[in-house]
Amino acid sequence: MKEIALYSSILVSIVAFAFAFWLFLWVKKQPSSNKTIEFNGELIRKGARAFLKKEYVVLAKFAGVFAVFIFVFLPIPIWKGNISQNLLMAIAYILGTVFSAIAGKIGIEVATIANVKAAEAAQSGIKRSFMAGFRGGAVMGMAVVGASLLGVVLVFMLTGDPTTVLGFSFGASSLALFAKAGGGIFTKTADISADLVGKVEMGIPEDDPRNPAVIADNVGDNVGDVAGMGADLFDSNVASMAAALVLAFSLDKVLGGVMNVSMVFCFAALGLLASIIGVMTARIGKHGNPTRALNSSTYVTTAIYIALTAAATAIFGFAWRIWGACVVGLMVGVIIGITTDYFTDDSKKPVKFVAKASASGPAFTILSGISYGLLSVLPAMIGIGVSALVAYKLCEPINPAFGLEYAMFGISMAALGMLSIVGMIISNDAYGPIVDNARGLAEMGGLGEDVIQITDELDSAGNTVKAVTKGFAISAAGLTVIALLGAFMSEVNTAAAELGISGISNFDIMNPMVFFGLLVGAAVPAVFSSMLIMGVDRNAQRMVAEIHRQFREIVGLKEGKPGVHPEYNKCIEIATTGALKELLPAGIFVIVLTLAVGFIGGVNAIGGFLCGNIISGLLFALFMSNSGGLWDNAKKYVESGHEGGKGSAAHSAAVVGDTVGDPFKDTAGPSLNTQITVVSLVSSLMATLFLTISIF
Amino acid sequence: MKEIALYSSILVSIVAFAFAFWLFLWVKKQPSSNKTIEFNGELIRKGARAFLKKEYVVLAKFAGVFAVFIFVFLPIPIWKGNISQNLLMAIAYILGTVFSAIAGKIGIEVATIANVKAAEAAQSGIKRSFMAGFRGGAVMGMAVVGASLLGVVLVFMLTGDPTTVLGFSFGASSLALFAKAGGGIFTKTADISADLVGKVEMGIPEDDPRNPAVIADNVGDNVGDVAGMGADLFDSNVASMAAALVLAFSLDKVLGGVMNVSMVFCFAALGLLASIIGVMTARIGKHGNPTRALNSSTYVTTAIYIALTAAATAIFGFAWRIWGACVVGLMVGVIIGITTDYFTDDSKKPVKFVAKASASGPAFTILSGISYGLLSVLPAMIGIGVSALVAYKLCEPINPAFGLEYAMFGISMAALGMLSIVGMIISNDAYGPIVDNARGLAEMGGLGEDVIQITDELDSAGNTVKAVTKGFAISAAGLTVIALLGAFMSEVNTAAAELGISGISNFDIMNPMVFFGLLVGAAVPAVFSSMLIMGVDRNAQRMVAEIHRQFREIVGLKEGKPGVHPEYNKCIEIATTGALKELLPAGIFVIVLTLAVGFIGGVNAIGGFLCGNIISGLLFALFMSNSGGLWDNAKKYVESGHEGGKGSAAHSAAVVGDTVGDPFKDTAGPSLNTQITVVSLVSSLMATLFLTISIF
Repeated sequence: MKEIALYSSILVSIVAFAFAFWLFLWVKKQPSSNKTIEFNGELIRKGARAFLKKEYVVLAKFAGVFAVFIFVFLPIPIWKGNISQNLLMAIAYILGTVFSAIAGKIGIEVATIANVKAAEAAQSGIKRSFMAGFRGGAVMGMAVVGASLLGVVLVFMLTGDPTTVLGFSFGASSLALFAKAGGGIFTKTADISADLVGKVEMGIPEDDPRNPAVIADNVGDNVGDVAGMGADLFDSNVASMAAALVLAFSLDKVLGGVMNVSMVFCFAALGLLASIIGVMTARIGKHGNPTRALNSSTYVTTAIYIALTAAATAIFGFAWRIWGACVVGLMVGVIIGITTDYFTDDSKKPVKFVAKASASGPAFTILSGISYGLLSVLPAMIGIGVSALVAYKLCEPINPAFGLEYAMFGISMAALGMLSIVGMIISNDAYGPIVDNARGLAEMGGLGEDVIQITDELDSAGNTVKAVTKGFAISAAGLTVIALLGAFMSEVNTAAAELGISGISNFDIMNPMVFFGLLVGAAVPAVFSSMLIMGVDRNAQRMVAEIHRQFREIVGLKEGKPGVHPEYNKCIEIATTGALKELLPAGIFVIVLTLAVGFIGGVNAIGGFLCGNIISGLLFALFMSNSGGLWDNAKKYVESGHEGGKGSAAHSAAVVGDTVGDPFKDTAGPSLNTQITVVSLVSSLMATLFLTISIF
Repeated sequence: MKEIALYSSILVSIVAFAFAFWLFLWVKKQPSSNKTIEFNGELIRKGARAFLKKEYVVLAKFAGVFAVFIFVFLPIPIWKGNISQNLLMAIAYILGTVFSAIAGKIGIEVATIANVKAAEAAQSGIKRSFMAGFRGGAVMGMAVVGASLLGVVLVFMLTGDPTTVLGFSFGASSLALFAKAGGGIFTKTADISADLVGKVEMGIPEDDPRNPAVIADNVGDNVGDVAGMGADLFDSNVASMAAALVLAFSLDKVLGGVMNVSMVFCFAALGLLASIIGVMTARIGKHGNPTRALNSSTYVTTAIYIALTAAATAIFGFAWRIWGACVVGLMVGVIIGITTDYFTDDSKKPVKFVAKASASGPAFTILSGISYGLLSVLPAMIGIGVSALVAYKLCEPINPAFGLEYAMFGISMAALGMLSIVGMIISNDAYGPIVDNARGLAEMGGLGEDVIQITDELDSAGNTVKAVTKGFAISAAGLTVIALLGAFMSEVNTAAAELGISGISNFDIMNPMVFFGLLVGAAVPAVFSSMLIMGVDRNAQRMVAEIHRQFREIVGLKEGKPGVHPEYNKCIEIATTGALKELLPAGIFVIVLTLAVGFIGGVNAIGGFLCGNIISGLLFALFMSNSGGLWDNAKKYVESGHEGGKGSAAHSAAVVGDTVGDPFKDTAGPSLNTQITVVSLVSSLMATLFLTISIF
């Protein structure tokens, strides 16, 4: 049965790639004729490629250093263990980084074509434009999920060892940590600077071609929201499979058989299959509502997944309780998405309230946005808690002798369930920056108000859907890392058994080492966010200075004299250099602190550290994503004519809110997902070392 | 020996009261002659009294309901247990609220006299003015600590049962929860509104008598920063003693003797004694530096305390290891205070950076302030973790058979150590609003620039010292609640033993109930802060509307026509009504959610809930207090002529930062202290009920 599961996973991955290729061709053959749009599209493409190339060079060096470290020390130091095992681990790690990088690269390539096509297509109505944007995004969706499933299957088949899959996952995570941070800093640097000088100081429209930062801003959408987000979800998806595999494998080992491992692959493959079908069904009428189109295909995917997994459970005789855990995860994910939507939807109270408060000045925009952001964490935290609890209680009785093991496996399958529709989520998410770009290109290409209005509508749908998918992504990461906590314990006990020393049966809060770890771990997401926000802040100040310089020194730019162009490249360069400079310290801080806590306090301190990190990471990720989304939509709401509309005092206050929200929702917030995953994976991989070498 | 400790505690408390009375008389006999100052001082006094009266009426009703609930259900339901025990518990609870209220009342009475005296004295130089402010604050310090020690001793002597002391502590906490929230909402409503309309819109100076909110603003300093803060520290102080007593008592019970209980009272009394001496030594030269004067008397108190407790340990033969834990707590408190100072001191990088960032607009003020605020949590979290760990490891070996019990007792004594100098801290803290008021009175009384400059200097010292003492207070609350976690477990096991059922030996993170509790508990401080900030936000918008109305409708007010006064009372009324309306929901939410989690998930869920609450509460309290303090000082830094000074773009951005920071640092941040204490106490008191009645 395991073979069936493995080979069908490979098959489904290949189908996903083929489908992605078909979508890519479809997007490519869409017509494009407008010279200005082509020209600007090319600038964006080149800028994105240049950044990605530089970023990957930096990351390749970093990954090289890490690979050497892994080869020497993991899973056990080379002088104590088996050299080939270490080599496999290092290879798995490198594969993880490479697969992730390739997925990001594919995403960028298609997104920077689809944006042009979507802008052009908007001239013939919303329908074609929507399809160009969505199918462009879906290429990324299929590529990411296909690559993650294929990678996990290949590594597992190659080594037969789930710990190596953790290595693969760590490769994906460490790349994602930096790609997300780097892309996030790039995109927000450009976005903030462009808005601040353009909209606030000079009063020129968004995406005005006179603005020197306008191309950098559009490049940022691609490298931050497409490549960065893709790396993030690649990472979450791989991590959820890795955690489930580790737990399933150790269960299969003691119980005999291959039931649980097969189930993991089978359910993962079905998730991808359901997403393929979901993407295929995405349609919009001539005067259709793009938000509804995006959401309904998500719900279709969900329903298909539940049906397919039920069928598989019946056919292969998997445990229904685990299927239940998986479905609970998925359903709770949907519920969390809906509650998140409440806080960022402009037809609901929070957005309206913040817009209204803006009339009293920016301080009230900030205060009310922060209030709602803080409030918004409650449903998600309870939701994550409930799904973990239900999954645990559902699966614990499957085999009373291995209650805890089955329970943790159940949680990991709940996370897998939540992430099952990740292909669909990435498609929706990547759709956002593509149509955002299309809007910019339409503006720069002078396609007129009607066309811009269409792209505006598509863009706004992207923002709304993004809120829902973000709630999903954060919650799924939360459940995944809870499962990884279980995986960590399982790794520790496996190592302890091999070493003939006593393992651990719990992480007791009353154990001072655990508590110490909790406190320190909880501080990490705060510090990590601080470093990223500060990076954006510093970098944006540099870029603002450059924009000021160009307006001052380039004669005729301000007035829009024909033939006078700003030096777009200078801004792209500043964003690139700054992002690359700021991206490493935060990531390195996290990894080094994890190692320090582990080597000082041992496995108990790390258990607490993980837990504190998860909890605080979820809190801050939810808070920042939601308040950021709320401010963005409050600004749009004011711009659409409420509370005095554009140019009013409420508008400039709302712009301040949006500027504060930018690094919240697109830099720090989503990077925290990756941050908690990285900490969890480092801990699991280092379990043996922390167990044997620690001061206390 | 226990008797010696108890009676000397009573004696020291009486000395503290006598000393406070002497200070009060000293303040009162300072000269005052200026009619305008007297008049305005009277307005402030009346406003503060009126608010306090109304607040206490609301709280009395609330406390009455709670007392009935306690009488019926605690420690065990009346139909199952012993009616006199329940009666004592209810009485202890009421005493806790009454003592806390009295301390607050005393503070307000003296502060609203000392402000006038300090304003007057400023005419003859900084020395007398400083002494008037400081000694006025010290009355509050002595009253609070004297009352808390006396209350705890009396309740313990009356009942001989530390659980009743928890009831007393809960009385203090529940009052503090609402007093802090209510006072915090009042003060920030007035402060924000006065600044927003006065400074930002109209460009009139701070404390200008034309501003209708100016008296409300000064009333706010008293009800928020004097009465509210006093209630907060009364609560922390009582809670630390209660936690230590519960743990000491159960150790003495199993080991025989009275050593540990005696030690708690002895060390608490010595803390008060050290504070009395510290207050006595506070002096300032004619051209002296008020910051140095305040800080140096804090260090003197610390040194005296260490010496006195060492002597007592030698004389009475207490365990040196516990003394060590106590000293570690105190030292770590000092270190945390110093690191906190770094983030809010205007001669250090953070304040300068935020001031500089303000030149690029308010979004950068907010982003950089949030970044530093987030960063600032790290040293304090590590510090709390280290002191808990060291205290644990120091005290665990005292008796290997009761390692955990001694370890938790050690942590509680570390908290007691950190709080030992609380008398000094309150004196410094209450000094702040008094001299802040004095500044306002000097401005309103037209005492001229030189005098205002002196009061400005005193005020600024108050702000700096406040940052240090806040770091102290939050960390001490953190350690206290960790000890209360131990007290909770001890209560559960005592109850379990009496009921003949099995108790608990740990709170395992891998137990899904514990984890569920962790997630939900961590969300509480976010929601609680959200509700308070929203309360300030809503209330300030009401008051801003009222100020606008007055300037519009009262002829000659804007122009400052002689004889035309604003309707100060209207603003005070709005602040009062609003604060009373907004104060209950947040507090009730916290208590009800704790009960819900306990009755649904039982003691394991509550253990996790407590832990999540502590961690997230500390994070948010530190973040909010520090970023708020940073913004306040960045604004002052700009106002003192940097980055363009008053009236510049940087200034208006810095004012936005300060406005956002106001409810952070004076409403939500400090209220979180109390919030985590309340949750801990409710849990401990309800231990038996949660153990016997819970769904899972």
